[in-house]
Amino acid sequence: MGRAHSNAWRQAPRFFDLHADVRMKTICGRDRRYVRAAAKKLGWETSAIDWRDVIADPEIDIIDICTPNDSHAEIAIAAAQSGKAVLCEKPLARDVSEAVQMVAAVKRAHVPNMVCHNYRRVPAIALAREMIERGELGDRIYHFRARYAQDWIADSNFPVVWRLQSRVAGSGALGDLGAHIVDLARFIVGEITEVSAVTDTFVKRRRGARVDVDDAASVIGRFSNGAMLNLEATRFAHGRKNQLSFEINGSRGSLVFDLEKMNRLRFYSADDPQRTRGFREIIATEASHPYIARWWPPGHLLGYEHTFVHTVADFVSAIVARKRIRPDFADGLRNQRVLDAIQRSAKTERWIQVQR
Amino acid sequence: MGRAHSNAWRQAPRFFDLHADVRMKTICGRDRRYVRAAAKKLGWETSAIDWRDVIADPEIDIIDICTPNDSHAEIAIAAAQSGKAVLCEKPLARDVSEAVQMVAAVKRAHVPNMVCHNYRRVPAIALAREMIERGELGDRIYHFRARYAQDWIADSNFPVVWRLQSRVAGSGALGDLGAHIVDLARFIVGEITEVSAVTDTFVKRRRGARVDVDDAASVIGRFSNGAMLNLEATRFAHGRKNQLSFEINGSRGSLVFDLEKMNRLRFYSADDPQRTRGFREIIATEASHPYIARWWPPGHLLGYEHTFVHTVADFVSAIVARKRIRPDFADGLRNQRVLDAIQRSAKTERWIQVQR
Amino acid sequence: MGRAHSNAWRQAPRFFDLHADVRMKTICGRDRRYVRAAAKKLGWETSAIDWRDVIADPEIDIIDICTPNDSHAEIAIAAAQSGKAVLCEKPLARDVSEAVQMVAAVKRAHVPNMVCHNYRRVPAIALAREMIERGELGDRIYHFRARYAQDWIADSNFPVVWRLQSRVAGSGALGDLGAHIVDLARFIVGEITEVSAVTDTFVKRRRGARVDVDDAASVIGRFSNGAMLNLEATRFAHGRKNQLSFEINGSRGSLVFDLEKMNRLRFYSADDPQRTRGFREIIATEASHPYIARWWPPGHLLGYEHTFVHTVADFVSAIVARKRIRPDFADGLRNQRVLDAIQRSAKTERWIQVQR
Amino acid sequence: MGRAHSNAWRQAPRFFDLHADVRMKTICGRDRRYVRAAAKKLGWETSAIDWRDVIADPEIDIIDICTPNDSHAEIAIAAAQSGKAVLCEKPLARDVSEAVQMVAAVKRAHVPNMVCHNYRRVPAIALAREMIERGELGDRIYHFRARYAQDWIADSNFPVVWRLQSRVAGSGALGDLGAHIVDLARFIVGEITEVSAVTDTFVKRRRGARVDVDDAASVIGRFSNGAMLNLEATRFAHGRKNQLSFEINGSRGSLVFDLEKMNRLRFYSADDPQRTRGFREIIATEASHPYIARWWPPGHLLGYEHTFVHTVADFVSAIVARKRIRPDFADGLRNQRVLDAIQRSAKTERWIQVQR
Repeated sequence: MGRAHSNAWRQAPRFFDLHADVRMKTICGRDRRYVRAAAKKLGWETSAIDWRDVIADPEIDIIDICTPNDSHAEIAIAAAQSGKAVLCEKPLARDVSEAVQMVAAVKRAHVPNMVCHNYRRVPAIALAREMIERGELGDRIYHFRARYAQDWIADSNFPVVWRLQSRVAGSGALGDLGAHIVDLARFIVGEITEVSAVTDTFVKRRRGARVDVDDAASVIGRFSNGAMLNLEATRFAHGRKNQLSFEINGSRGSLVFDLEKMNRLRFYSADDPQRTRGFREIIATEASHPYIARWWPPGHLLGYEHTFVHTVADFVSAIVARKRIRPDFADGLRNQRVLDAIQRSAKTERWIQVQR
Repeated sequence: MGRAHSNAWRQAPRFFDLHADVRMKTICGRDRRYVRAAAKKLGWETSAIDWRDVIADPEIDIIDICTPNDSHAEIAIAAAQSGKAVLCEKPLARDVSEAVQMVAAVKRAHVPNMVCHNYRRVPAIALAREMIERGELGDRIYHFRARYAQDWIADSNFPVVWRLQSRVAGSGALGDLGAHIVDLARFIVGEITEVSAVTDTFVKRRRGARVDVDDAASVIGRFSNGAMLNLEATRFAHGRKNQLSFEINGSRGSLVFDLEKMNRLRFYSADDPQRTRGFREIIATEASHPYIARWWPPGHLLGYEHTFVHTVADFVSAIVARKRIRPDFADGLRNQRVLDAIQRSAKTERWIQVQR
Repeated sequence: MGRAHSNAWRQAPRFFDLHADVRMKTICGRDRRYVRAAAKKLGWETSAIDWRDVIADPEIDIIDICTPNDSHAEIAIAAAQSGKAVLCEKPLARDVSEAVQMVAAVKRAHVPNMVCHNYRRVPAIALAREMIERGELGDRIYHFRARYAQDWIADSNFPVVWRLQSRVAGSGALGDLGAHIVDLARFIVGEITEVSAVTDTFVKRRRGARVDVDDAASVIGRFSNGAMLNLEATRFAHGRKNQLSFEINGSRGSLVFDLEKMNRLRFYSADDPQRTRGFREIIATEASHPYIARWWPPGHLLGYEHTFVHTVADFVSAIVARKRIRPDFADGLRNQRVLDAIQRSAKTERWIQVQR
Repeated sequence: MGRAHSNAWRQAPRFFDLHADVRMKTICGRDRRYVRAAAKKLGWETSAIDWRDVIADPEIDIIDICTPNDSHAEIAIAAAQSGKAVLCEKPLARDVSEAVQMVAAVKRAHVPNMVCHNYRRVPAIALAREMIERGELGDRIYHFRARYAQDWIADSNFPVVWRLQSRVAGSGALGDLGAHIVDLARFIVGEITEVSAVTDTFVKRRRGARVDVDDAASVIGRFSNGAMLNLEATRFAHGRKNQLSFEINGSRGSLVFDLEKMNRLRFYSADDPQRTRGFREIIATEASHPYIARWWPPGHLLGYEHTFVHTVADFVSAIVARKRIRPDFADGLRNQRVLDAIQRSAKTERWIQVQR
């Protein structure tokens, strides 16, 4: 994550007009030698091994948090209290109560704040949202169905890393992958009101160590606008490397997306002539598509790291323009409430209302 | 359906060795003129307008029921009592109690019986089942995720046909489309033990008339072997004409199928060399694939009606060989119990155990 | 081929209104026992072992020729002289001179005649042609690029069957596969005026026996309307089971087809709004698409044999209506002239004008 | 191009271990104000408006040429004479005689030299080459078929830019797009020995100005190893934004690639078990794939600009290690000879031997 974020800070000013000079001041990590090397390699002026030093630095205006989930709250709150703008990796927190405190802190301090749900800024996804806002799917959404599937722990010999420990990660596939599709559901369709969920831990011990997070979660639910929700997050889908996919069916059309083909958006319009109607495979690399005008000619693909570049560019631009940026910590909290409802539903085997 | 079944009876003996002479004796319908014309067009010797006459005919050994769902039970029970073999369209019945009576009737009468879940006999689906049985996906299935989506009533001006009336159809997308994926879930993975579901009727009045069946259903659940279940049935997915799709993730691989590309099965094997691994797109038209040896050379596609031909061929062969054929009425009942649990779950907003 | 044609004759009257009673009178083959069994299995009233007997039968109106290429001319000419309508498998003949005689014979006899280029009657291909005629690709075609690739002899241990002997087959991949795409090029785009070609025989001896036909042919050329042509026919493309694919680029749009996904036609329209433009994947199974109204609901796929059913249905309908049917023997001859030009070009390494 | 190359120089040291400090010294352009702004935006220390000044700068070791084709030769030769390493955009030159002089210059000066055929360094393409070298397609290649299609001038209102003027560009689609697939053909399969080609200019006048380069080229030919060649380059294929696609058929398997899905490589192996064989869709984002270990986790896509980063990284590494780097100017010359043969073939309508 450090590499992806560093790249974004380096690249954003090269491709976007930020109306601000971006100085990459300090990178912080636990190991002094490693972080020094990283600073040089990744383009930071200096390095630190205590995040409190970074926050104390008066030359620094923005804190970008890419640590494991269990330190998000502490760092973000301290940063806000010091009047820094804060960009925080997702999920915002390990649980709702942490997230509530984080939102309170940024509100109290009036500091710009953003959660790094970078996939909102995949051009094809930003286009999807635009199309729905312009009514290109009709005046009503019937269903939103999303899946985020990977396979990196499908092999039961894979060790227990921090992402498999509830104390550090909060949850498993749910917080790591599910958080992204919950955020996209809210971004594209609207607020989620209630859920029923099942989760499972398929491999409960790995090399003797206990796994205490979910390996997969499957969720049904409802949106406040009446649409139906179906979500699945799993790390046990062999062959799915980074398959964040969704389908949205509206009253006049449908949209289909898959992150493994992230430059494409499939669009079916019931308004096309019936005889020549079919899913259109839009290659979202035209100058008229979000973010693309700053990059390459049509058909010249963007990749994973561009989503971070867009996030940073938009964050800096919003700070300069003193505008609200989304998703902010309030979004992060709302996402967390949905994740929390999912976890409680899975535990209690009941439908759970998402807290407002 | 009458055309598809008639075609199957005509074609099965031409392509398969049935060890029986198939005579297409009588077609039965409500309108005398229409059914006479149909008999001639579709290849039946005679026609009738009262199904009791057909059952009373001593020359007839097999009754094939393609009527709307509300007459399945009555006809099937009478046919069984007359000692006829019975092939019945899906869903077997409108509800569990009807299905229980039907199973009792065929058991009492010891007559061959089959539910026409024709999609079990799509070559690619039969291959999927074979592969799982042979362990090609590993010794454990993690999740089964299926969707049956169409769009023929997504237009709210579409009228209220019998499939949209609960009295005749029993349920909506659930019984019509969901029944197929419930049957495939059981065929490929195993018995379903519990479900949590949500259903909705998006368009409640059509041209003034009330719709009292579900337009869409979304289901999560568990299999007895520990696998997770995620199902969706909908008639409101613009662009999805007949998308019965599923994905199965096992401990050593995955399978992906879509009925709109019914000659293909995608297979990912974690046992392939890592460097050249990827979903294999198997075109299931090789002589080594189920049913194909009786048809055309590799790459020459089969279509929708072939699934009925395979069903009839297998049914007749089983009758001749005095072997049990699947899915039989007992399968139909088990499917019905799952559908019933789904409906009750949606109504009560609780997890429901599937009755044994 | 006998099975596919027999099926077409059986099925055409069941699905189409032919305004004629089709009697399947006689099937003819070389081996008496085999052909008798075939007659029973495939639905013919009687069988014969001398095709002259069939032609002599006054009860027979139509002769359908599915023999190896070296007997097409003799049988077709005799049939025409007896006043029979003639349907002949492709390629029409082994060479141009045979084809010239066949055209002369059917013209002299004024008998209905047709070459069985069944792929013209794939609904998606018929739709492609319709769309071009209606100007949906603009007023000009820039290029037509087609490939027919299979892999059944890519294994060098495969034996020398008749299709690999020039005496019987005339040519190899060219006449077998190339003939289809030459016919489609003419059907969809227009007349071909000149070609430059290369052919090769990759495996020159199989199990000791000599192969004297081409294994693959690659062709460039021009159409009379100025479009550019690029064709490839090969039996050495591992993984391509029956890949007859083409792409057509016009001044306002493009079409893409692949027989291995024969129910689909991809269409790009430069007239769609730029922001949501992309190849539309039309599933050519709507009632508004050619031939489909006689078959199944949307999304319910057709297969290989349907193309023969459509061919027979159109042939019989044309005979009844006394209308010209295409592709007729004159088309077969024009195709043959293109194939001949390709062969001569490959031999002489020169551009060859297609004879008019 | 300036932006893509500048990005590559900035990014290469961040992701690769180059064993050299890369200083981005001077960017050169024609307009002083514009080039100054570019220097700042793109990360260059200084700017210049006369390329001779850059070559004269003793602090500069590497000259990267991204100018229009008509200045490649002059700049490259001067750079070589000054002892600089030279990276030159493709096509190397406008014609063979220029390319011959350029090769002579770099040989005489013993300077590292490379042509920027960046697509050799798409991970999936580098993987394809590796697989063929390791024999994964068998011991023999039957055909190589490639197409590079775009649609940016399919609209006849598009103006006459420098790429449409023979004096500056040398040729049209052929030199711009064809050069890439000729280079890949040589990279992956081997040397091309002879060609027959047709080219056309579909829109001869644009807004009154004459177009004197080809809009499309179609080529057949032979490789020295006996494989057949089929190439097409066009700017008139509506819907094809950047479709550099190829298929390679070998004696034991096939490979399929499409730049519009550049992270994927499709592989069919005749050595897979027949029943579960099919094209494998390899997502070339595993650490075991070329270049990927320096980037992101599996399934996290790379894009267009990464190919330039790889090119620069390899070039710098080769300079440091004093190793030959490919494609060098000698490759560029060989490519040019093939392009020249294609042009002469199209002009004379004859097969042309590629000069050795």
